[in-house]
Amino acid sequence: MPEIPEQQSSPDPDERIVLAHGGGGELTRRLLADHVVNKLANDLLDPLTDSADLGPLDGRVCLTTDAFVVQPLEFPGGDIGRLAVCGTVNDLAVMGAVPKALSLALIIEEGLPIATLDRIVESIAAAADEAGVVVATGDTKVVEHHGSGGMTVTTAGVGLLSPDGPAGADGLAGEAAIRPGDAVLLSGRIAEHGLAVMSARENLAFRTSLRSDVAPLTGLVQAVLASAADVRFVRDPTRGGLAGLLADLAEQTRLCIEVEESAVPVSAAARHTAELLGLDPLTVANEGKIVAVVSADTAEEALAACRAHPLGADGAVVGRFGEPSDWPLVELITRAGGRRIVQRPYGEDLPRIC
Amino acid sequence: MPEIPEQQSSPDPDERIVLAHGGGGELTRRLLADHVVNKLANDLLDPLTDSADLGPLDGRVCLTTDAFVVQPLEFPGGDIGRLAVCGTVNDLAVMGAVPKALSLALIIEEGLPIATLDRIVESIAAAADEAGVVVATGDTKVVEHHGSGGMTVTTAGVGLLSPDGPAGADGLAGEAAIRPGDAVLLSGRIAEHGLAVMSARENLAFRTSLRSDVAPLTGLVQAVLASAADVRFVRDPTRGGLAGLLADLAEQTRLCIEVEESAVPVSAAARHTAELLGLDPLTVANEGKIVAVVSADTAEEALAACRAHPLGADGAVVGRFGEPSDWPLVELITRAGGRRIVQRPYGEDLPRIC
Repeated sequence: MPEIPEQQSSPDPDERIVLAHGGGGELTRRLLADHVVNKLANDLLDPLTDSADLGPLDGRVCLTTDAFVVQPLEFPGGDIGRLAVCGTVNDLAVMGAVPKALSLALIIEEGLPIATLDRIVESIAAAADEAGVVVATGDTKVVEHHGSGGMTVTTAGVGLLSPDGPAGADGLAGEAAIRPGDAVLLSGRIAEHGLAVMSARENLAFRTSLRSDVAPLTGLVQAVLASAADVRFVRDPTRGGLAGLLADLAEQTRLCIEVEESAVPVSAAARHTAELLGLDPLTVANEGKIVAVVSADTAEEALAACRAHPLGADGAVVGRFGEPSDWPLVELITRAGGRRIVQRPYGEDLPRIC
Repeated sequence: MPEIPEQQSSPDPDERIVLAHGGGGELTRRLLADHVVNKLANDLLDPLTDSADLGPLDGRVCLTTDAFVVQPLEFPGGDIGRLAVCGTVNDLAVMGAVPKALSLALIIEEGLPIATLDRIVESIAAAADEAGVVVATGDTKVVEHHGSGGMTVTTAGVGLLSPDGPAGADGLAGEAAIRPGDAVLLSGRIAEHGLAVMSARENLAFRTSLRSDVAPLTGLVQAVLASAADVRFVRDPTRGGLAGLLADLAEQTRLCIEVEESAVPVSAAARHTAELLGLDPLTVANEGKIVAVVSADTAEEALAACRAHPLGADGAVVGRFGEPSDWPLVELITRAGGRRIVQRPYGEDLPRIC
């Protein structure tokens, strides 16, 4: 006699998400009250109005959003909730903006263990706290189970560019300000987010001590901006890694870029895991690093400010911008003294990394 | 010989979404440039920076978000894109806020026809235009195909509460201001969104002329607020319908509510479709209606302002708040003169309705 498939049995709504959790009735209210709103409690969220009233905001208002589909939902060093908070905070941070409030939209598959949801929402609360921001408003939907992995998290963030901040009222000058000779500062070891997620997915976790670097970067960016350095541009090398970011910059500035392989911080664990997975660390996603482009004569000031911050202790100047070119390339000067062209990764290699 | 299953053949990335469209490489850039950003073009979005700089905003800033998982993606009268824009605009509108900017996060399944994406993004652009708002920032992810139906859309919105608006600096007074005797104003015919979606899903579309009422409500809300009426509270009766909204209000105010069935506008098509589907129109979702609670002596002014607006032409006073009670109920006075208790719908009935 065949076994009754697991999905035929009615799941306990105290143990696992069921469709009725998303229907807007009593189960929805209990789910939100006991597993979401209570963990995120703050003055903006608690009234549970249709939208959160942030009050008057003094400065230039920035808005950003990110959708997260990472698999697995939890990985060494983080989870989809921490990733969502940090990703959105960091999109604001690299503009020179300080985050004020987040929105949080959860799309949950039926069957997700409530205990998993609890851990992820607690992680969202902790990451928001660490980043100095609150979840001011949200929405939760429940969809049928079809094996996509449990949940997606979409955050939007409102941040403020201070009119008297070091970068001026317009935020960072942007890539248009980059000049030949400018230095490329990297705030620490690369590839640890992508490799930690891939290792967890491939059941390699036991072989490596790698942990995702996912972290809110507002403090680090503000520290570099507050230094005496002439900072032209800041971005976080996420999907596409350092290679993708530099390829974009070369294309946008029409300037060549030289990178010193020996100067790029990569841990031994990351190097070995990347080899095992057949990946180039330069193309692997980071979630807690910045690349700053600074004038050559002030690179030391920027580097000192970076290293003085806990999240930038391993910072290094890893390259420089070269001359204008009709075919601007990113070139890696290898440890052996050779040169190879650094290319934007082909996308399909690393789905569900963020 | 068995046929080769369709999913084994490599889809044409100009015809259908493939995983590489989400990988951050050349295909991603082409997808965004040719099918998303070009259709939404505006001064805030076009720089494609990590976050959009909205500039200084004068007033109280409101933030809201919604995730949309409606099935099918397109239905008579609307689609998931129009629904997302209107849903978020309306969350701001019912606070008395005027929308300034939206964020747009798309999670697309591989296999979605590019032509479907095109229609939905064009619908987003048209709805934003209609609502007087722009999509200022966005994110797009691609996930494996697993039959969940093509895509989800999550929007967040920033709006402004005018300090000199009719509702004062704090927006609407909220449910705490509601008093016994207050009138319940409904802006038009109910149940048309939910029934149109259900009809499309059940292949009943050919039997009915029903279309979703999905529309941006800022203008209608502002018109009612600008009238001489004493408006205590405004909300749009979406998921859970009119019944769900009134049940919430009875619970929050601890006041009974009486509704006149004969006064509630329901089209013949909606009544017949609801009967066919075994649904009570009172519990079915709307996406283009408001419920306003106004003082009894100013209800006529509110009604006149509502009816003068194209989206409120069928508006009616449908009920009134009664006395305080330990067990506050919503009671329907039926056409036959009987009474029945109106209950919040049980959630599972209508999944994927928004």
